[in-house]
Amino acid sequence: MPRKNAFYAQSGGVTAVINASACGVIETARKNRSSIGRVYAGRNGIIGALREDLIDTSKESTSAIRGLASTPAGAFGSCRFKLKGLEENRAEYERLIEVFQAHNIGYFFYNGGGDSADTCLKVSQLSESMGYPLQAIHIPKTIDNDLPLTDCCPGFGSVAKYVAISTREAAMDVASMCETSTKVFILEVMGRHAGWIAAAAGLAAEEEGDAPHIILFPEIAFNRTRFLARVEQTVKRQGYCVIVASEGTQYEDGTFLTESGLKDAFGHSQLGGLAPNLAQMVKDELGYKYHWAVADYLQRSARHIASLTDVKQAYDLGEAAVEMALQGKNAIMPCIVRGTGKRYRWTIGEAPLKEVANREKKMPRGYITRDGFGITDDARKYLAPLITGESYPEYRNGLPRYVKLKNVAVPRKLDTDFEV
Amino acid sequence: MPRKNAFYAQSGGVTAVINASACGVIETARKNRSSIGRVYAGRNGIIGALREDLIDTSKESTSAIRGLASTPAGAFGSCRFKLKGLEENRAEYERLIEVFQAHNIGYFFYNGGGDSADTCLKVSQLSESMGYPLQAIHIPKTIDNDLPLTDCCPGFGSVAKYVAISTREAAMDVASMCETSTKVFILEVMGRHAGWIAAAAGLAAEEEGDAPHIILFPEIAFNRTRFLARVEQTVKRQGYCVIVASEGTQYEDGTFLTESGLKDAFGHSQLGGLAPNLAQMVKDELGYKYHWAVADYLQRSARHIASLTDVKQAYDLGEAAVEMALQGKNAIMPCIVRGTGKRYRWTIGEAPLKEVANREKKMPRGYITRDGFGITDDARKYLAPLITGESYPEYRNGLPRYVKLKNVAVPRKLDTDFEV
Repeated sequence: MPRKNAFYAQSGGVTAVINASACGVIETARKNRSSIGRVYAGRNGIIGALREDLIDTSKESTSAIRGLASTPAGAFGSCRFKLKGLEENRAEYERLIEVFQAHNIGYFFYNGGGDSADTCLKVSQLSESMGYPLQAIHIPKTIDNDLPLTDCCPGFGSVAKYVAISTREAAMDVASMCETSTKVFILEVMGRHAGWIAAAAGLAAEEEGDAPHIILFPEIAFNRTRFLARVEQTVKRQGYCVIVASEGTQYEDGTFLTESGLKDAFGHSQLGGLAPNLAQMVKDELGYKYHWAVADYLQRSARHIASLTDVKQAYDLGEAAVEMALQGKNAIMPCIVRGTGKRYRWTIGEAPLKEVANREKKMPRGYITRDGFGITDDARKYLAPLITGESYPEYRNGLPRYVKLKNVAVPRKLDTDFEV
Repeated sequence: MPRKNAFYAQSGGVTAVINASACGVIETARKNRSSIGRVYAGRNGIIGALREDLIDTSKESTSAIRGLASTPAGAFGSCRFKLKGLEENRAEYERLIEVFQAHNIGYFFYNGGGDSADTCLKVSQLSESMGYPLQAIHIPKTIDNDLPLTDCCPGFGSVAKYVAISTREAAMDVASMCETSTKVFILEVMGRHAGWIAAAAGLAAEEEGDAPHIILFPEIAFNRTRFLARVEQTVKRQGYCVIVASEGTQYEDGTFLTESGLKDAFGHSQLGGLAPNLAQMVKDELGYKYHWAVADYLQRSARHIASLTDVKQAYDLGEAAVEMALQGKNAIMPCIVRGTGKRYRWTIGEAPLKEVANREKKMPRGYITRDGFGITDDARKYLAPLITGESYPEYRNGLPRYVKLKNVAVPRKLDTDFEV
């Protein structure tokens, strides 16, 4: 059997450690040259496969590939592009197989969240029904931590660490100034559907009274009166109040707090943002001086303070994906399995893609305190190990040395274009 | 002559390294016990002196004081409280002297920006005119980098490093997703009067085309048409556009872009914020998908990624302040003097407070490119050394171990209260 090449693509929102998974895939494939030919990466994710725009990773040096382990974002480009169902758009899937066939690709490694797990499964099913031999392995990635069957998702631990540290640091700033200045500080974090990221801010608090004093989760309906009462009570008790709010915070009727309801002179809706809206509410009702921050992309790209645990898991899942492929496995996802002992230990297991696709892991209600404003000890036990360890990148002239790949294109073999 | 005690206070907005200056003051005083008795700190800054609310730093362990060198924010509390002129409110100054006298304080170390330099000078003048022997030394601190006579200000190097790193990281995120997602990213940074902090983001760019593509400075009048044209041109050329905007960005007529001009249903002004306003402008006129971040306090409290150069300078200035006091000096500020060679070297000099107080150091026009959207090589040469070196705090359980002092109060000696 002639050696097959591998295809690797990054999907959806990038993270501080998705390139560490890429590094695991490529380094492990390079160790197994007798079985795997070249690793081709999709330029801008799966779109690269549809367009037959492949990147030849064999053109990159050993040190450049090593550098991926400490480089944030998507080194080959990622995309927000969801393949439709097989029934609706079979052409897309057939095009993938056509491109894979043209480039002798026998391994499909897809690095993403729930949608890409679903795509990976469909590609596997279609290749089987078309009689094209392809092993499709999904590598989990998402800052949202919402994939099922894996104890956690690479990308989450690092954003969790960033948010916990930033909350602690900003809270110290507020605490030291609150006598004469800002009394309320609001940090808006990501998490439209689940409060995992906001929950991680809770790790910053170690003693009674420590910030954050209020966490707002998408899972808990926002109640303006209760919120304001808690802010006031906290300022009276602690002298200041630090709030960490998930961008998905919403009223009971499902209206997001990001929607300000304001219009500008041209009748355009004002985009507002959750943090400024909460700040306005606090100002109007309680009159406290406030400040707010919106971390946005800073939180998911902050490789400079990535969790060592997260980096290791991201790498090892990439490595495991290749090893599983070499063992002949298909339509699976390597996943993190947490040990049962008191000390945190993890191993890599495997989950069938059928059980991964289209299932979201919600945060258990038992992770949120009864009053809805904080995290419980169970949440703390789950979250704490994920942020442990620091994995610092190298620096040059005071700035992290992140790698920039050459991303050399693989010569095209097909003469057909494909519009995406 | 009996040993005199020292008084130390933190003033104005805190930074990632102001406690490193406190550490320098206290450790150096402890090494000179034969000359300096105890170091008392003002609780919440100068207010602590007015209220006779002093903290006895001798109650803190050697390791707690050492820990200050890697702890952000103000360990004793700071305040935004500007003493009025001597003519308007002589009572405040007399109260300070009264408290100093009651606690046998002969050294006054005031750690802050331009206003506190002015206060420090006035206290020195009044004590002299009242015949009370007091050596007043000002220790520079401000993220704004706007103090004269010192090459740079402690606090600035670390915020500069944070902003440069965050810009680089977030830009990599945007670059890897721009094919199908966000095309314009806006990071709002501090700097109401001067663009030093925004300028530092420019260090993230090393090659032609690197982000940030547009920097908005308070020094350059904002022109909507030129701005939008540059955004469009950049997206067409690079595929995406990263903008770093100083919060002080303003139109030619002095209107800040933070003022959205919108009102809510109750007629309250909408607070808006610069970044969301710019985003709205981009969306309305160019239709690009955007994201924005507001770093706010995160940038000035980010001790986890402080500049080693900044930390050293902050410490050494604290140390120098005590040494200068021991040499009998008064009404001065130790400052950073840059060497002339090609390699960055710095020493500590001294500046008379008379020449420091009430003078702001603006960013030279020659540091901003002619088009007003970037920094020049001269700016780069000035800024680059200030962010070099990493000074990581210790970690425990994945979070920085920042010290929390006991802050034991000094028993009061006066029976008069003073309202502030």
